[in-house]
Amino acid sequence: MVEKEISQAVIGRLPRYFRYLGELKDDGVERISSQELSELMHVTASQIRQDFNNFGGFGQQGYGYNVEYLYREIGKILGLDTQHSFVIIGAGNLGRALGNYLNFERRGFIFKGIFDRDPSLIGREVRGVPVQGMEALPAFLRENAIEIAVLTIPKNSAVGVVDTLVENGVKGIWNFAHVDLNVPEGVQVENVHLSDSLMKLSYNISSAQPVKSGND
Amino acid sequence: MVEKEISQAVIGRLPRYFRYLGELKDDGVERISSQELSELMHVTASQIRQDFNNFGGFGQQGYGYNVEYLYREIGKILGLDTQHSFVIIGAGNLGRALGNYLNFERRGFIFKGIFDRDPSLIGREVRGVPVQGMEALPAFLRENAIEIAVLTIPKNSAVGVVDTLVENGVKGIWNFAHVDLNVPEGVQVENVHLSDSLMKLSYNISSAQPVKSGND
Repeated sequence: MVEKEISQAVIGRLPRYFRYLGELKDDGVERISSQELSELMHVTASQIRQDFNNFGGFGQQGYGYNVEYLYREIGKILGLDTQHSFVIIGAGNLGRALGNYLNFERRGFIFKGIFDRDPSLIGREVRGVPVQGMEALPAFLRENAIEIAVLTIPKNSAVGVVDTLVENGVKGIWNFAHVDLNVPEGVQVENVHLSDSLMKLSYNISSAQPVKSGND
Repeated sequence: MVEKEISQAVIGRLPRYFRYLGELKDDGVERISSQELSELMHVTASQIRQDFNNFGGFGQQGYGYNVEYLYREIGKILGLDTQHSFVIIGAGNLGRALGNYLNFERRGFIFKGIFDRDPSLIGREVRGVPVQGMEALPAFLRENAIEIAVLTIPKNSAVGVVDTLVENGVKGIWNFAHVDLNVPEGVQVENVHLSDSLMKLSYNISSAQPVKSGND
C-alpha cells in the first residue's frame, strides 16, 4: 500500500498516535488540529505533520484532522484492519499472561495456540486454548496459517525454534527471549527485552540529580 | 558519578552491551577488541567506541577491552552494583508473571510487595509475597524504602496511583499501563507499551515486500 520506505522511528510513533486518536474518538471529539494534538501528546506540531506526510498527510490541515478518519487510516497502515493469528511458544508465567490478555484480540490479534516442551504443562488451558507439545508445532503453524509467534522461552530454546517458525510460514516474531535472533530477510522481529528496559530505568534512577534551582 | 548528560539513545544501548559482555564472560573470554564486539553485535566499531567514550572509553583499545572489567563497569553505570527494591501494583496475570520472574533478582532488583484493589486477590501469594490491598501501599513504600514501582494495572487506575507513589519516595516507575504518565521532575518513567510493540510488528509484517532479486 505504501511504496516509500518509512523509517522505524516513524513506525514506532504510529501506535501512540493511534492510541490518542482512539481516546479522542471515544470521547466524542470529531476534529482536531495538529496544534491541539501536539499539546495533548507533548510532541511538536511540525513533528506530527512530518510523520503524517509519510502517508500522504491525511489532508485537512486548515480545518484540523477528522479524528475518526485519521484513527481508521492509521489503523489500516498498522495492519489492524485484518486479523493476525498468533501462537505463543512457552507456557510459563509470561506466556500465560500474554495469552490471557484480551486487548490484543480487540486489535485483531487472535490467540490460536500455545506450546511448551514441559510435559507437566501440556493439556493445561490458557483462556480455553490447550497447551500442546513442541512436536505438534510445525503442522499447527501450517494448518492454521499462523502469522505471528510470540517467544516467551529461555534464550537458548528461542534460537533453536526460529527455523521451525520460519519454515512453516511465520512472518513475524514477537521476541521476549533475552537474545537477538537471526532471521531470514522478509521475516520481522520485534523485541521486548524486559531486563534491558528495567536496567535503563535503573540507570536513570541512579544518575538522576536533585533538581537544580535557578534559571540557567 | 557521571557528570555529563548522556543521551537516552546511548543509555538504551548499554543493557545490550552488558548482556553480550556477560555472555562472553560466562564463555571464558578475557579480552575483546571493538572490532570483534562489533561483528558479534552487528553494530559498527565506531559506534561502540563513541558510546564507550561517553563514560571515559574504558581504555585499552589497542589491546582490546578487558571483558570482566568492562562488564563490571557497565553494570556499575547501570546501577546494578546496588540493590533496588520494587513493588508491583496490580496482581493480575502480568503482575504475577513479573513477580515470578527470577532474573530480575539476579540483577539486584528485589521483589518486596504486590498490591491490588481486588479483594479476591488479597492474601494470595506470588513467590511467597502476599498480595496486599491498596490502602496498605503508602506506609509500605515508606517503611521499605521502595525505589521502583511496576504498574500492571489498567490505564485509568495507573494515573490515579502515581501521586501516592511519588509522595512516598518512589524514584522510578516501570509502566506497563497503556497510558503516558505525568510525573514530577526527578521521577523516572520507563514505559513498556506491549500493544504498541505488537502494532509495530503488525505494520512491519503488513508492509513487508517480497525480497527483490537483482543488484539495484
